[in-house]
Parts: sequence; C-alpha cells; structure tokens
Amino acid sequence: MAKRRHLKHRSVFYRRFTSAAAAPGTLVAQPEAEPTRVKLISFDADAFEEVEVRPGDLSPIINRPKDRVLWIDVQGLRDHGMIQQIGDALDLHHLLLADAVNVGQRPKVEDYGRVLFIIVRHAQRDAERGFAWEQMAIAIGDGFVATFQETAGDCLDPLRERLRQGKQSLRTHGAGFLGCMIVDGVIDGYFPALEGVGEELEQLEGQIINAPSRDSLHQIYRLKREMMSMRRSTWPLRDALSHLLRDGHPLLEEQVRPYLRDAADHVIQIVDIIETYRELGASFIDVYLSSLSNRTNQVMRLLTVMSSIFIPLTFLAGVYGMNFDRSQPHNMPELGWAFGYRAFWVVSLAMAGGMMVVFWKLGWLGGIGKDDRET
Amino acid sequence: MAKRRHLKHRSVFYRRFTSAAAAPGTLVAQPEAEPTRVKLISFDADAFEEVEVRPGDLSPIINRPKDRVLWIDVQGLRDHGMIQQIGDALDLHHLLLADAVNVGQRPKVEDYGRVLFIIVRHAQRDAERGFAWEQMAIAIGDGFVATFQETAGDCLDPLRERLRQGKQSLRTHGAGFLGCMIVDGVIDGYFPALEGVGEELEQLEGQIINAPSRDSLHQIYRLKREMMSMRRSTWPLRDALSHLLRDGHPLLEEQVRPYLRDAADHVIQIVDIIETYRELGASFIDVYLSSLSNRTNQVMRLLTVMSSIFIPLTFLAGVYGMNFDRSQPHNMPELGWAFGYRAFWVVSLAMAGGMMVVFWKLGWLGGIGKDDRET
Amino acid sequence: MAKRRHLKHRSVFYRRFTSAAAAPGTLVAQPEAEPTRVKLISFDADAFEEVEVRPGDLSPIINRPKDRVLWIDVQGLRDHGMIQQIGDALDLHHLLLADAVNVGQRPKVEDYGRVLFIIVRHAQRDAERGFAWEQMAIAIGDGFVATFQETAGDCLDPLRERLRQGKQSLRTHGAGFLGCMIVDGVIDGYFPALEGVGEELEQLEGQIINAPSRDSLHQIYRLKREMMSMRRSTWPLRDALSHLLRDGHPLLEEQVRPYLRDAADHVIQIVDIIETYRELGASFIDVYLSSLSNRTNQVMRLLTVMSSIFIPLTFLAGVYGMNFDRSQPHNMPELGWAFGYRAFWVVSLAMAGGMMVVFWKLGWLGGIGKDDRET
Amino acid sequence: MAKRRHLKHRSVFYRRFTSAAAAPGTLVAQPEAEPTRVKLISFDADAFEEVEVRPGDLSPIINRPKDRVLWIDVQGLRDHGMIQQIGDALDLHHLLLADAVNVGQRPKVEDYGRVLFIIVRHAQRDAERGFAWEQMAIAIGDGFVATFQETAGDCLDPLRERLRQGKQSLRTHGAGFLGCMIVDGVIDGYFPALEGVGEELEQLEGQIINAPSRDSLHQIYRLKREMMSMRRSTWPLRDALSHLLRDGHPLLEEQVRPYLRDAADHVIQIVDIIETYRELGASFIDVYLSSLSNRTNQVMRLLTVMSSIFIPLTFLAGVYGMNFDRSQPHNMPELGWAFGYRAFWVVSLAMAGGMMVVFWKLGWLGGIGKDDRET
Amino acid sequence: MAKRRHLKHRSVFYRRFTSAAAAPGTLVAQPEAEPTRVKLISFDADAFEEVEVRPGDLSPIINRPKDRVLWIDVQGLRDHGMIQQIGDALDLHHLLLADAVNVGQRPKVEDYGRVLFIIVRHAQRDAERGFAWEQMAIAIGDGFVATFQETAGDCLDPLRERLRQGKQSLRTHGAGFLGCMIVDGVIDGYFPALEGVGEELEQLEGQIINAPSRDSLHQIYRLKREMMSMRRSTWPLRDALSHLLRDGHPLLEEQVRPYLRDAADHVIQIVDIIETYRELGASFIDVYLSSLSNRTNQVMRLLTVMSSIFIPLTFLAGVYGMNFDRSQPHNMPELGWAFGYRAFWVVSLAMAGGMMVVFWKLGWLGGIGKDDRET
Repeated sequence: MAKRRHLKHRSVFYRRFTSAAAAPGTLVAQPEAEPTRVKLISFDADAFEEVEVRPGDLSPIINRPKDRVLWIDVQGLRDHGMIQQIGDALDLHHLLLADAVNVGQRPKVEDYGRVLFIIVRHAQRDAERGFAWEQMAIAIGDGFVATFQETAGDCLDPLRERLRQGKQSLRTHGAGFLGCMIVDGVIDGYFPALEGVGEELEQLEGQIINAPSRDSLHQIYRLKREMMSMRRSTWPLRDALSHLLRDGHPLLEEQVRPYLRDAADHVIQIVDIIETYRELGASFIDVYLSSLSNRTNQVMRLLTVMSSIFIPLTFLAGVYGMNFDRSQPHNMPELGWAFGYRAFWVVSLAMAGGMMVVFWKLGWLGGIGKDDRET
Repeated sequence: MAKRRHLKHRSVFYRRFTSAAAAPGTLVAQPEAEPTRVKLISFDADAFEEVEVRPGDLSPIINRPKDRVLWIDVQGLRDHGMIQQIGDALDLHHLLLADAVNVGQRPKVEDYGRVLFIIVRHAQRDAERGFAWEQMAIAIGDGFVATFQETAGDCLDPLRERLRQGKQSLRTHGAGFLGCMIVDGVIDGYFPALEGVGEELEQLEGQIINAPSRDSLHQIYRLKREMMSMRRSTWPLRDALSHLLRDGHPLLEEQVRPYLRDAADHVIQIVDIIETYRELGASFIDVYLSSLSNRTNQVMRLLTVMSSIFIPLTFLAGVYGMNFDRSQPHNMPELGWAFGYRAFWVVSLAMAGGMMVVFWKLGWLGGIGKDDRET
Repeated sequence: MAKRRHLKHRSVFYRRFTSAAAAPGTLVAQPEAEPTRVKLISFDADAFEEVEVRPGDLSPIINRPKDRVLWIDVQGLRDHGMIQQIGDALDLHHLLLADAVNVGQRPKVEDYGRVLFIIVRHAQRDAERGFAWEQMAIAIGDGFVATFQETAGDCLDPLRERLRQGKQSLRTHGAGFLGCMIVDGVIDGYFPALEGVGEELEQLEGQIINAPSRDSLHQIYRLKREMMSMRRSTWPLRDALSHLLRDGHPLLEEQVRPYLRDAADHVIQIVDIIETYRELGASFIDVYLSSLSNRTNQVMRLLTVMSSIFIPLTFLAGVYGMNFDRSQPHNMPELGWAFGYRAFWVVSLAMAGGMMVVFWKLGWLGGIGKDDRET
Repeated sequence: MAKRRHLKHRSVFYRRFTSAAAAPGTLVAQPEAEPTRVKLISFDADAFEEVEVRPGDLSPIINRPKDRVLWIDVQGLRDHGMIQQIGDALDLHHLLLADAVNVGQRPKVEDYGRVLFIIVRHAQRDAERGFAWEQMAIAIGDGFVATFQETAGDCLDPLRERLRQGKQSLRTHGAGFLGCMIVDGVIDGYFPALEGVGEELEQLEGQIINAPSRDSLHQIYRLKREMMSMRRSTWPLRDALSHLLRDGHPLLEEQVRPYLRDAADHVIQIVDIIETYRELGASFIDVYLSSLSNRTNQVMRLLTVMSSIFIPLTFLAGVYGMNFDRSQPHNMPELGWAFGYRAFWVVSLAMAGGMMVVFWKLGWLGGIGKDDRET
Repeated sequence: MAKRRHLKHRSVFYRRFTSAAAAPGTLVAQPEAEPTRVKLISFDADAFEEVEVRPGDLSPIINRPKDRVLWIDVQGLRDHGMIQQIGDALDLHHLLLADAVNVGQRPKVEDYGRVLFIIVRHAQRDAERGFAWEQMAIAIGDGFVATFQETAGDCLDPLRERLRQGKQSLRTHGAGFLGCMIVDGVIDGYFPALEGVGEELEQLEGQIINAPSRDSLHQIYRLKREMMSMRRSTWPLRDALSHLLRDGHPLLEEQVRPYLRDAADHVIQIVDIIETYRELGASFIDVYLSSLSNRTNQVMRLLTVMSSIFIPLTFLAGVYGMNFDRSQPHNMPELGWAFGYRAFWVVSLAMAGGMMVVFWKLGWLGGIGKDDRET
C-alpha cells in the first residue's frame, strides 16, 4: 500500500477565496504550495522510460515521440511558470490549467475537444483528524496524459510499478487507458478510508445501544461531517463518470470502456456505502435521543417513588409532633394510647408498603439504573 | 423449498478491502473461500445431460456442442486457476471474471458485447441473525450460461429439476432464457425473507402500541438495519433490470422478454415492500417516542399530585408543632381549643379533598399506569 | 352506488408466499379462492347479448363473432382449469394468466403484443377495518376484453347497465374503449374511500388541536398505515397509465385517448389527495408532540409553584418547632414574643404572596389545566 | 385591483363525490351552483363588440365571424343545458365540458386536437378564513376562447378593459394570445394572496422567537395547511405550463411564446415562494419546540434550586425538633448550648449560601423567566 | 475587490406586489429607484472607447459601429422613458425590458431569438444584516451587450479594467464572450459572502458543542434563513446555465463555451456549499436539542439526588419529634436511650451514605454542571 502523504485537512466550511477581481483562467500565485517536480514516463508495448524534467527544459515534452504514450506527472503546484510552459507545450486550454492549479475544484469531467479533462480527489483519513483531500487533475490528450497533484506523493506508485513491469498488457493500450487506470487508482484509495469510518461506526453503534453518553453525540456529529465531506467528493464524480460512460469520447477506445465502467462502478459502490452510513448516523441520533428520554423518565420515576412514599409519612409524623393542648379530651388522644407509637409505625409501614406494591405493579421499581450508566 | 445454506452474515459496515495497489481485474486470492466445484448441464429440447468437471480437464467446455445450451455452474470460488481457465475457454473478459470472484459487488447488469453479465445476491434470513447474502454472478453468452456462486448450494435446484423434466418447454429456448430463469430463481428467494421481516414488524407493532419498552427501540433499529441492507441489494438490481428491459440485448430473444419483465416486476414489488417497511419503522419510532413522553408526563403528574396534596398539609402540621410561648395570649390560641385537633383534621381533609377535585377535573387522576406498564 | 362486497382486508405486512420453487407462470392452486363464474357480454352498436359460460363449454368464446366486442368477465379464481382453457381460447400468455390468478400483484400495464394487460386494484373501505383491496386483471385483445376478479362483485354493474342501454355511444367503440371504461370504473371507486379518510382526518384534526389524547396518536398511526396501503395501490398505476398515455398502443384508437387521459387524471388527483393527507398526518404528529411537551411543562409548573411556596414555609415552621433550651437567653427569643405567632403568619403569608406575585409575573399561574384536559 | 368575490372556502379534505356509477363525461347536476350568464366579446384589430347571450339563442356563437376572435365568457355553472349547447356550437369534446362544469379538477393543460384546454384556479385569501379557490376552465380553439367560471366575477375585468382600449396591440393577435392573457391574469391574482401569507409569517416569526405560545403552534399549523392547499393548486400548473412551453401547440403562434413563458415564469416564482414558506414553517416548529424544552428546563431548575436549598435545612430544623431525653448527657447537647440557636442559623445560612454559589456558578440563577413569559 | 454598494436587504417574505391589473410587459413606475445613468463601452481587438450617454441622445447606440462590441451599462432604473428608448434602439422585446426593470425576478436564461436574456443576482453580505441582493439583467445581442443594474455599482469594475487593458485577448471575442464574463463576474461575488457564512457556522459549531445557549438557536435560525435566500438565488441559475450549456445558442460561439462552463461550474460549486451548510445547520439543531435534553436530565438528577437523600431523613427526624406520651412504656422508648441521639445520626448518615453510593454507582453524581454552563 502507498505510503501516507501529508495532505491538508480541509474544513467543510468554505474558506479559500480567489479574488473576485481575477479573470477566469488566472493562475493565482500560491506561495504555500509545494515546489513543483515533473516526472516523465514514456512507454509503448516494448519500451519503458522514466526521466525527470529539469526546470526550463521542456524538450522531452515538446519533442515527444508520437508512437509512445507520455505521462507527464506534475507534483507540487508552486511553479506556475513551468506549469504554464507545460500547458503550452501540450496545447492545454488556460481554463484547464487554472482548474488544475487552483485546487479545491469539484470532481468533474470536461471535454476540451482534443483533450479530456478529469478532476478527482485523492482521499486519506486518520482516525483523529478525519479526511484529508488532495486534488488530482488529469488531462488526457492524444498520446499523452498529464497529471497535476498538490503534493509529491505515491498513491500512483503501484500503477507506475505495473507499467514498469508491463503487466496486464497495460502498455499496449493508449493514453485513454492510462488515464482510466489513474482515475481507478485514486478511487481505490477511498476504500480503506471508508473501512476506517465503518469500524468507528460499528464501535459507536455498540456504545449508543449499551451506554450512550454525551461524547457519543459528538462522535456521531463528527462522523456525519466526515460523510458530508466524503459525499461532496464522490457524488459529482459519480455523475461525471456515468455521463462520460454514456456519451463516450474519441480518446477512450472501445477496449477502455469496461475499465472505465469498472471505475465508475467503484464510485457508485462508494456512494452507496456513504449513503448507508449517513442513514445509520441518523438512526443513531434517534436511538440516542430516545435513550436520553428513557433516562429522564427513570430519574423522574425514582424521584416520584421516593416522594410518594415519604411525603405522606412525613406529614403523619408532623401531625403527631403537633402541640395541641392534650388537657382537652378531643385533642390528640392517640398520643396517650399505650400502643400509639407502635400503631404509628404499623400505619407508616403499611402506607409505604402499599405504595411499593403499586409502584411494583406499575413496573417502576425495576429498571432504574439498569441501562442508565453514564460512561 | 431449497435447503438452507451457510451464507456469511455480512455487516452493513464496509469491511472487505482489496489492496489499493491491485490492478483492476486482478483475481485476489481468498483462502477462506469454499473449494471450487464445477457442474455442467447441457440440454436441448430432446436431450439433457449432467456432468461434473474434473479439475484440469475443461474439454467438455471447450468442445461444447454448438446446438445445445450449456450451463457451467461454478460453486465455491477458491480455485482461481480453474476459474481462469473456464473464463479463457468461454472467452470471458478478465474484469468480468474478477467481479465474479471478488464477491461483495453491487447487483448490476453489464454488457460485454458477446456476453451479458449479471450480478445478483441470493438472500437468506433467520430471525436471530438477520440477512445473509451470497453473490451470484451470471454470464450469459451465445449457447452457454456460466454461474459463479460463493457456496455449494441448491437455491437453483428447483430450476435444475424443471430443466431435467423438460417442463414448460424450458429446454426449447436458448441461453438467454436460462439466464433469465436463474435470475428469477434468485429473486424469488427474497419473498420468504421479507415475509419473516413482515411477521416481526407486525409483532413489534402490537408491542409498541400496547407496551413499548426499551427493547422495542432496539428491535426497530435492528429491523431498520436489515431493511437498509436489503435495500442496498435490491435497488441497484431494480434499476439494472429495467435498463436491460428497456434497451434489450441481442442474447435475449423476443420470447424471453415477458419472463425478464416478470423478474423485474418481482424486484419492483420487493422494493415497494421494503420502502413500506422502512416507513413503518419510522412511524414506530414516532409512536415510541410519544409513548415515552406520555409516560414521563404521567410520572410527573403523580409526583405533582402527591406533592401538591401533602406539602401544604405538612406545612400546617409543622405550624402546630411550633413552640411559641403559649403564656402569651396571642400565641397559638388554636392549640388550646377544645376541638383544635379535630378542626386541624377537618381543614387538612378539606384541603386534600379540594386538591383531589381539582386534579380529577383536570383528568390527572385517571390514566396513571394504565398504559404505562414496563414489560 | 354499487353494493358492498366482502373483500379481504390485507395487511400492509407481506404475507403471501408462493413457493420459491415454482416456475414463473405457474398457476398456484388456491383452495380458499371463490368458485369461478364466467359471464359473457357481446355487443356492437345495435346488439347486446349476455350469457353465462357453463364449465367446460367454451364454444361461445372460441366461436366469437369477429364484428362484435366480447367481454369475458371471470369472477372467482378457484377453477384454474377453466381459466387456463379461457386463456388458451383467447391465446393469452401463460405469464399473463398467472398474474391474473395469483392475486397480490402491483398495479401495472404490460404490453403482450396483441394483448394489452392491465392490473388495477378495486378499493373498499369501512371506518373500522380500513381499506380492503381486490385485484382486477384486465386483458384487452383484438375484439375482446377479459376481466379476472377475486370475488363475484358488482363494482362494474353501472358500466354493464350503461352498455345494456347503449348510452353515450358506448357500444360504437371497440375493445380498447371498453377496457378503458372498466379501468375508469375501478378508479372511481377510490373517491368514496378517500372521502371517508378525509372525514376521519378532519375529525382527528379538531381533536388533536383541542384535546389530544393517547388515542389520537394511535388513530394518526392507523390512518397513516391506510395511506401507505392506498399509496402502494395508486402510485404504480399512475406511472403505468401515464406511460401508456405517452406511448400509446395499437389497441387504443385515437378516440379512446381522451377517456384514458381522463382516467389517468383521476389517478393523479387521487395520488395528490393521498400525499396531502400524508403530510397532514405528519403535521398532526408535530402538533400532538408539542401539546404533550406543553402539558408536561404545565404539570412541572404546578409542582414548582406548590413546592416553591410551601417548602420555605415548612422550613420556617420547622425552625420554631425546635427545642433549643430557652433558658439560655440567646436561644429562640422569638418564641417568647407576645406577637411571635402572628409575626410568623405575617412573614409566611408575605413570603407566599411574594412568590405568587413572581409566578404571576412569569405567567405561570394561568393556563394550567386550560387545554390540558385528558379526554 | 379587482373587487372581491365570494368564492367557496374548500377544505383540504376531499369531500366532493361524484357517484361512482356516473359515466365519464357526465355533467352532474349541481343545483347549488350560481346561475349561468354568458357574455360574448368579439374583436379584431379595429373593432370591439360586447354582447350578452340570451338563454336559448346561441346564434352569435354559431354564426361567429371567422376573421374575429370571439371570447365566450360563461359565469356560473348551473344551466347545464345551455353549457351543453355552447359546447356543441363550438364542437367541444364532452369530457372537456364535463371537466369545465364539474369543478374541483386539478390545474392541467390538455390537448384536444383542434382545441387546447387549460384549467387553472383563481385564488383569493382573507386573513381569517385562508384561501378560497375557484376553478377557471379555458378552451382555446381556432378563432375563439371559451372560459367557464364558477361565479360571476371580475378578476378578468382589467384584461377586458385593456381589450376594449386596444392597448398593447392586444387585439392584433389571435385566440391563443387571448387565452394566454387570461391564464396570466388568473396567475397574477396569486401574488397578493402570497403577500398576505408572507406578512402573517413575518409576524409569527417575531412572536415565536420572542414569546412563543400555544397559539403560535396553531397558527403555524394553519399556515402550513394553507401552503399545502396553495401548493396543490400551483405545482400541477407549473408542470402543465412548462410542458406546453416545451412542446408548443399549433394554436399558440410564435409571438405568443414569450407571453406564455412569462406566465409560466410567474408560476415558477410562486412555487418557489411557497416552498420557501413551507421551509420557514418547518423551522418555526423547530424553534418552537426547543423554546418549549428550554422553558421546561428553566422550570425544573427553579424547582431544583428551591428544593436543594430548603430540603436540607428543613431536615436540620427537624433534627432539633426531636424530643430525645435530654436528661441523658449524650442526647442533643446542642439544644442546651448558649448560642445553639444562633449557631443553627449560621449553619443554615451557610448551607443555603453555599448552594446559591454553586447554582450561580452553574448559571442556573439567571435566566429564569427571562424569555419565559407566556403571552 | 469591488467597493461595497448599498443594496437593499430584501426579506425572504414576499412583499413586492405589482398590481394584478397590470398587463404583462408593463414598466411599473418606481420612484424610489436610483436615477438612471448609462455608460457605453465599445471596443474591438485594437480600440477601446468609453462614453456616458446623455439623456435623450441615443445616437451612439443607434449608430453603433457594426464591427465593434458595444456594452450598454444601465445603472439605476428610475428613468423608464430612457430605458424604453434604449430597448427600442436595440430592438429588445418589451417583456424583456419589463423583467429588466421590475426587479425581483428569478435568475433565468431566456432566448428571445436574436437576443439572449440572462437575469442573475449580485450578492453582498455583512455579518449583521445578512445577504443583500441586486438584480442584474443582461441582454446579449448581435454586437452588443446591455446590462441593467439597480444601483450604480462597481462589481464589474475589474472586468472593465481588464477590457481597458485588453488582457487575455478579452477584446478579440464577440458580445457572447463579454456577456459570459459579466455573468462570471457576478457569480464570483458569491464566494466572499459564502466565506463569511462559513466562518459564522464554524464559530457556531464550537459554541453549540461546548456551551449551547438560547442565542445559538436563534443564530442557527438566522443562518438557515440566509441559506434559504441564497439558495433561491442560485438554484435557478444553476439550472438555467446548464440548459444553456447543453443546448447552446448562436450568439455563444464555440470558443465561449469553456468560459460559460467555467461559470456554470462555479454556480454548481456554490450550490454544493449551500447544501452542505444547510445540512450542517440541521445537524446543529439536533446537537442543540439533545444538549437541552441532557441538561434537563442533569437538573432532574440533582433534584432526585437531593430529595432521595433528605426526604427519608426528614421523615426520621419528624418521627422523633412526635409527642407520644412517653409515660406509656411502648411509646418511643428510643427517646430515652442514652445514645438515642447519636444512634439517630449514625442511622441518618448511613442512609445518606448508602444513597450516595447508589447514586455514585449510577454515575449520577459526576457530570452535573460539567457541560451545563449557560453562557
């Protein structure tokens, strides 16, 4: 599996703001972006060559052999001048270049005539900080594929390795096939992230059913936010890929179709899982809220049981603590009875016992505290 | 009815994770899969033959008679080499084979030109553990149908029996018709599962209306999860079958169409039932939550009734328990009255009685405990 | 209006289960079904003839005059043999016959080439038991219409009467028009049922706004279930009829179109009403739950008012009931005051009065019990 | 603005019930309907003529000049005979006539070949009784427009006036344009109604945020019902008009298109506003319910504060009211202390003060009653 | 960035009401509108000219050079006469003019044959008052673009500046391109507004999770209303632009397409963000309500703990405060015990301690006040 890269953890809240005054297609300078490195891979069925472009020398791109497939892999988006030169060498539309460089675009597929442009997002997740996203822009042209990534990374290393070894007649197809493999490689990176979310959800499920706490709610909310972020990255891709699949494109030969369909199928599967998780999250909130109601109900019951038993008894004790003048024959004769005190206790215990029987019949005595343990 | 098989009870949480580094179309080794057995059935209107393929000897498949329909029934997916050989013999696309072997795919219909590929899920349910799913991949080609199941099973035994007996001119149609019958056989297995869910829901309904308990909520949640899982297995199939029905396919002759429509109709019916059940589940939660509110209300009422009656009386008793110096004429003359004590009781009972009347008019005295029995 | 028939009150829970082993198109024996009676009506613009078919003698069907419209009205579905013979005589597809006989199908429109097949559900409702549904299958062919009903009934009697009288040039159109009139007749039966639901909802509305009780909730739930059942019977019909309207069918001549559109329009209207009722039901639950919250709030207020007033007073009375040794000059000098007891009452009443003023300002004194009457 | 008419305030609950036995296209006698008056307006670019049709004499309709546009304005639907005659004179389909006369139809657009049939609803609203609806049926034919209204009214008077004055080259277009203007006139009547709802909602908003009461909830519910009723009248119209706009109709010339689009645009705007209002209503319920929760919480806090402070003190006072035999040296020596009583008060006030500090730190002392004023 | 303009803060409640009697296409007089100023910009690849039109002298518009692009920028909509003249000079449909002048239209794209008409809304937001909207109507014709704004503003100043400098070969394209740039400029103004909302939401999130208060709810509601308003301005634009993109228009040449797609893409992105924010708002309410429930639960617990501990003790103290005649040997012998008082305290403390242990085991003692601080 690919090594972890340090992707930025973008907020679900919109932040980035390209000046409204900027013309469309402007490459906005981003000094905090990673420095740009450009790797070239060119291959055909028999040959495979890998070089790194030196800044300023784009001859390997300009003089590319027409019978090979060239993969221009741009990592780090700081050097706009160089990217512009690559764009010019490949005759890429300046709006395309702007989208590739101004990260934060929606996943999409755009047809620029001789070039097919695809934006996907590479996902990474760790349990503490949630999802991190990185934009990957893919321009597929006649005989070349150019990819633009935010960071120097290796999520495509396995693909590069397969190319190098010439596995699966990977090198016998054209640029369309390569582009399709790149998209597939990025999409496959979603599954481990989803698996992580699934594990947390499963753990949360047990917690909410057995011992819901205030933290559970915050965790539901956190996972819900992650699902929203994930959804925003996958729904548009799903639509874009199925349109591409339906309408086709000259750069995608007929043999590439099943592979594209396979990638699109994975995205649909991911979207399905996300929707299931969202629905589970909503169920969790229902269960949590009714647990809370249940608890309050049980607290109230305990209070009511205690009060109903002791308040009448306290009144009775209060009665026999009154100071009516016992020299008057009608005043509090009970106090003078030989067994008055014992009678008081008998009456008190009978009243309490009667109450207990009533509450026991109502089922209020059991259950308190049973599933009411705060964790 | 078919004997029960031991299907895996898959979680709604996504678990399976094929390494992101794997190329599309890779057959991932799954040592825990069942061993592979391959049965062949070949028939035409007059003949019917059943053999089992020995490992390594695929001649019955390669030299299949062109005028018969051949059903290659692969049960257990452990032996990838053999499955690959069968795929080669039938000229199946390696992506198709990968989907057939890497279980956990979405139900779908894919057109591979000369081969129509259908993935459905076979359902089984028991009351304790909920649904179990098994993937069934069906490749329909010219003169053959290949099915790939996870476990050696017999959900298709009735179909096999009907073939053997040549009922319903089943053997006079081609491979498309056979494929259609297989899909129909799998779908029909959903109905008993749904019936089981329906029975539990009906029982739960009575319970929630008459005596809702904490367990009811957990049971609602459990059934909701089952419905989510069922839905994920049937919605995609519904869409896939209606697309197939609308667009047609050369392998499905015109006479097969009504049978396919019949199968699609069953799926729509199943989806309808699932949606109804989901909606019922949501209603149950509403009823449950308002029962809970009702109960808390009744508990509070009892507390309020008890407190409102006895707290003023306790105060009154407290007053006549005070020790003001009765040698002062204005201090507590009531204590010296001949009928002071009796007057106290009269006042107390009057106050309590007045309160009771008020509460009775408010309707608070009835109803407590009536439907408040915890079960 | 048509006489009431005894339709089965089917549960929303799925129950019926045709053995998974049965082949599609099998007529499953149903001994509890009603005995089969077959009536024939044949007519053209000038003639009208009504006969009943004797079991075994299908010659009136087989030798039907080609220039008349024949209506084969099958009531009661027990005699599968006879139904099969009718199917053969009319050359009906065996899947069509199976759907007609195996009741519980979704409403649908299916095109069997030379025969147009429509399934609708006949509705009846009584206030105690809710909806009852009966399947009506309609096969429209060239020169004939065959209808299959579960019970001997008369929901189509008015239509029969109009045919007999030759009203509205009903007899000058072909079989398509007759089929369309039958569908329309069944759909029109929904309106009185909806009217009944509407009346109950209106009554429930008043109850929930003025004096919500636990029964209200159960009634909302019951009506919600009825709406779910109604919806399941009408939504599919709506879709099926609008498809039929859009695509047309050779058996439905151009003059029939407005009548079909009229029927489809009625279904849309019914679906609209159902959706409105569903939404009303959801609003009722909101109103009910907030009434409940309001009540609990008022119960709590009463408790708080009573406790806040009397608990401090009880403490005060307790203080002057203490037995500190009054021979010590600092101990409880108040007890020896001439007006100590009166001062106690003044202070007590002032405290209680002050509390009352506070609660009155908070608005807590009014309103208790106002709309809190349990009914 | 048009004078108010007395429209019927129809319930959202379905009531009207045309006998199920009636054939489609039957004009059901409605004795409570208004008496029928028929006005004729005929015009071309130069001429304008207005007459009222005498019952029985339909010659102005039958002998209508072919080069003028004739507007037959039928007000009041009691005289079915006359309406039938008009229908015959204009060659209107009897289903069309039935829909025009049997009020309560959904808004719709139907194409009867040579006649385009539109049903819209005229809206009027007053604050006490909510919406009132009146059906307006519009049949647009070659050279004529026939309108059928329930009541003699003047919502179209402004249009009539503009026709009379020949403004906006209104008279130079054909019947399609006139029909379009009539639809537009009816739709424009929705805006003042919506404005009224908007004002009530705004007022309600302030009330719910500042001082929610039980009446607020009933008012939300009332407005929600109005929105449901409004929605049922406008959604179908929106769909019908956009279909008409998309598909066109021979009776609507190209120049009429922008006017039809304008009318459709207004309906979309109305639907948008209704949806916004519905969503606002849902938010109101959320705010209301959480206000209620907040209040209950504050009531509980007050109770808890009072009880927590005074219950321990009352216990303490009770202790020193006990009558243990002080002749035993270990029994209640505190009672004999010189400063015992003062010590009691010091301890009591310290306990109460300590509690107050705790509650103050929890923030429970502020806020009670702040926004808890029942209005 | 553009300077702030003073846009009107329109309510979500519908207010504006153009008399129902007005004919479609009427320019309603609006005396409170800003005075009208008209600026002209004409350019081609080489030249750039800017003039201001004097009232009454429209010759620069009428005699516009055919080889240049003319931008007629109308700011302030009070002078209907002049606007009408401009409309006549450019041959604009009077419905188009009416929509441009009667502000408050939905965003839309309308095709008037030789003119393409687009309505968008310019957004501005400040934290106190929320969104302000201004209508911008754009009529794109052959060789000209006319824009109609409510206020003299400068949200298009950056575009004007770019035109002046001839950047990005902006002047080499036609009127379609200019129109597209104007739309894009307006849309880009949404991002800072969204950023502001995002910041408030993020702050609110922290507040709701850590210390929810009554104000939080009002703030959620306020932001929800803003989102509703924003949504009403962007959803229709999204649909309109994607229809335009799909269907194309003769005035939009092929090179303009990517720019239009870019603008449409921005709108989709904005709609996505709004939907995410709406969903977050809904989650906030869930979290808020369950926090409230949690608090009530904690308040109840404290009350129950206090009551359960002290009420039995108070009863016990009351018992030994009774005045039974101790001369009877069975009456209250405990009072005479040497260690009776001490025993009382031992029993009392034991009971209280036992209760504390129970509550501690239930976990009720911790947590109170922990996250229950009202802010």
